[in-house]
Amino acid sequence: MTPNEFREHGHALIDWIATYREKIEERAVSRTIEPGAIRAALPKAPPRQAEPVSDIMADFESILLPGVLHWQHPSFFGFFPSNVELSSVLGDLLSTGLGMVGISWEASPALTELEETCVDWLRQMLGLGPAWRGAIQESASVSTLIAIVCARERYSGSKYAKGGIRQPAHPGMVYTSARAHSSVGKTAMIAGFGTDHIRIVPIQPGGSLDAKRLRAMINEDIARGARPVAIIATTGATANTAMDDIDAIADVAQECGMWLHVDAAMGGAAMLLPECRPGWEGIERADSIVVSPNKWLGAAFDSSMMFVRDHEHLTKVMGTCPSYLRTPTDGKVTQLRDWSIPTGRRFRALKLWFLIREQGVDGLSKRIRRDLVNARRLAQLVDAEPGWHVVNKITLQTVCVRHEPPGVSGAELDEHTRAWVQALNESGKAYLTAAQVDDAWMVRVSIGVLGTQWHHIEKLWADMRAYAGQNARLALAA
Amino acid sequence: MTPNEFREHGHALIDWIATYREKIEERAVSRTIEPGAIRAALPKAPPRQAEPVSDIMADFESILLPGVLHWQHPSFFGFFPSNVELSSVLGDLLSTGLGMVGISWEASPALTELEETCVDWLRQMLGLGPAWRGAIQESASVSTLIAIVCARERYSGSKYAKGGIRQPAHPGMVYTSARAHSSVGKTAMIAGFGTDHIRIVPIQPGGSLDAKRLRAMINEDIARGARPVAIIATTGATANTAMDDIDAIADVAQECGMWLHVDAAMGGAAMLLPECRPGWEGIERADSIVVSPNKWLGAAFDSSMMFVRDHEHLTKVMGTCPSYLRTPTDGKVTQLRDWSIPTGRRFRALKLWFLIREQGVDGLSKRIRRDLVNARRLAQLVDAEPGWHVVNKITLQTVCVRHEPPGVSGAELDEHTRAWVQALNESGKAYLTAAQVDDAWMVRVSIGVLGTQWHHIEKLWADMRAYAGQNARLALAA
Repeated sequence: MTPNEFREHGHALIDWIATYREKIEERAVSRTIEPGAIRAALPKAPPRQAEPVSDIMADFESILLPGVLHWQHPSFFGFFPSNVELSSVLGDLLSTGLGMVGISWEASPALTELEETCVDWLRQMLGLGPAWRGAIQESASVSTLIAIVCARERYSGSKYAKGGIRQPAHPGMVYTSARAHSSVGKTAMIAGFGTDHIRIVPIQPGGSLDAKRLRAMINEDIARGARPVAIIATTGATANTAMDDIDAIADVAQECGMWLHVDAAMGGAAMLLPECRPGWEGIERADSIVVSPNKWLGAAFDSSMMFVRDHEHLTKVMGTCPSYLRTPTDGKVTQLRDWSIPTGRRFRALKLWFLIREQGVDGLSKRIRRDLVNARRLAQLVDAEPGWHVVNKITLQTVCVRHEPPGVSGAELDEHTRAWVQALNESGKAYLTAAQVDDAWMVRVSIGVLGTQWHHIEKLWADMRAYAGQNARLALAA
Repeated sequence: MTPNEFREHGHALIDWIATYREKIEERAVSRTIEPGAIRAALPKAPPRQAEPVSDIMADFESILLPGVLHWQHPSFFGFFPSNVELSSVLGDLLSTGLGMVGISWEASPALTELEETCVDWLRQMLGLGPAWRGAIQESASVSTLIAIVCARERYSGSKYAKGGIRQPAHPGMVYTSARAHSSVGKTAMIAGFGTDHIRIVPIQPGGSLDAKRLRAMINEDIARGARPVAIIATTGATANTAMDDIDAIADVAQECGMWLHVDAAMGGAAMLLPECRPGWEGIERADSIVVSPNKWLGAAFDSSMMFVRDHEHLTKVMGTCPSYLRTPTDGKVTQLRDWSIPTGRRFRALKLWFLIREQGVDGLSKRIRRDLVNARRLAQLVDAEPGWHVVNKITLQTVCVRHEPPGVSGAELDEHTRAWVQALNESGKAYLTAAQVDDAWMVRVSIGVLGTQWHHIEKLWADMRAYAGQNARLALAA
């Protein structure tokens, strides 16, 4: 594609995206799609001959767009907010257009140094101390994997990295809460721990991991010859935004010589607000933290920030320097590949830099605060409504609810819950996700899409009552 | 940022990128930057108040752009081609603008099914059989990590994933060539093998891993109680594009029950051309392959394609399904998170879809063929020039050269080699990277940037002779 063709199609695409965002409320949040229907509509084989961009865009609109769940829609309350501020789109576009790859500092000094700057800006925005260093990773899961490998190597004195994991008598153990993200188990498995060596610590009322039970479990494990290696705490659990008591957990980690990693992928954005910071008191005592600006904060995916206190340990574990990457500046500069699994990376900091500058810390803070207020307002409405219950502690922007029609409980209630949320989702009016907590299904209202104002939430609440009520009547009639 | 502001700044940015690409030859490929200079020019603290986009772009041009190594410059011959076709920029922009996250099929059916389609298109383009399935990963390193974990779990019968790695008597071994990418050691370390259990197999003349020596090393390891787990072969080694003899290695892998992973991250693009496919004969006997369309082929980073034969094993190892991701379509659809480390992903297939359609398989093939021809032409010129030597077998688009002034050898020659390439790089006229093969430094001319025509290579060749000659004279005079 020539630059002139790019001008033409690029302008059209910018307009398309602007209009998409402008008029997104006219769309159904999602449409029901039969599995395989999109694939069946696409050609089986790649085209031999070049095709016009207009054909590609036409196919995008007719074949793909109906199968898009609109995460940027103000009535999207599913999963978590994955905001992509339009300023961040610009930063990312610039990165793609430049097309450089950060495999070493020399391979692009600007890429490395802007990433260092943006990491430090975010550190300050979150109220973290100056000892923290960091890098942008693909995702929170990857950050957690790197943290677990660092924990493993601190435990082994770097012997496993060299000699492989050896555990004839002393398997290392990883501890986390039942509310932790599924990536904890997955990444510990990848790092060679085995899911048998991941201990799920019970939670206290309110959802925090029970630090006393943690201590007791560690004692039991030590007594039977196992050794504690790492604990993964969560600031804002995926299902219900439960907040672990970092300070209490840090006491245990310190006593037992464990690595403390804090998964604040979604919830970390709230720490822009000083009034939220008591929610992760003790954070300075952690060894590593992940906060993903590509969620609530508004940076385009992928932009997950991993912070670490002992960065020399991290780069010792993760570092490599083959001859084809050796340069005269080695030792004087940061080599981001030594912080990551991949060797190369996009100019990922640009999208964060555009976002932070174009919004300002005040602008970002104001929006995060709006969502926190909206969540509390919705929780009040739900609590005041007969038959409805808020089933989580409102710590952040997610309100977990259950509609309990009279006389309906157990499996029947689970069925009712999953049925009304599915019916509401199929209507296209809003999108919600259900999740299981303590073996019971509930519905998560995850507030925080950029465009979501209070009136969208009011409308959602009316729709929730309508669909749950209608569904309950149908269920009772059946 | 409002959609209208996005229109305004987006159009300007599209024009900026078009002009950047159009006039890139007017720029020095790189400029010398002092470590820390860019960071020092950026504000230490993030802005509290919103700033105009014009200020951000002005700072980008004045502070960051001088620190950009121009990977898309036709005189960039460093590292490897990391082409970003402008059509791929459009596909990526569309993905960012839509802002969806593929954490499950339901979270975006179009994202999942287009990725399945593009994986299968690429499979066909590379001449691979219909049994291969795949997914797009962040990078080749990540693909190799997943392959190594799959190998580990096939070896352990999924016992390590559950019980952790246990190796009191039988450490599992990973084999690879001295020419393999640094990610092999790093990812095996992450997966718990330990670098002591990575065996570097000697190479044959021409650069292929010596399959007989591999067999002998495995026998020795078995005799001392170790067990072979995986072998990582390379199609197009990073330093010198050496090609392993996949067929001979597959014989050994089969005999010994090992997982065979083929790293064709860069070189795989050549397999678009039927005439190149003898270069990875035996590929159908591999267990996994990685080909990264974000290198030579022209898709924007990140777009690394991992193919696997036993996808049920892969998704069993890598799969998770927490309640908050359960949906009514489970079991009927592909869940891409079960193929990857992260749970979520961008709509990465769009950039590949735009690229393949806008260029057509014929267009892509023609360009790859051009680069292969240019590499052979350059090698002929170098070989014909007194004092110059081609030091690799020209298998793909990289010509490895050494200028050997009379009477200069050993450490002095290494110094000369690194000095002239540094001087040439600092001139901004071209960019090359040096690398060490068999303990001697040489210079890699990695051809294949989208805009690189034969005349750019002729100019490079003149510059190489000038800088190496000048440097040799200075060295001899000193």
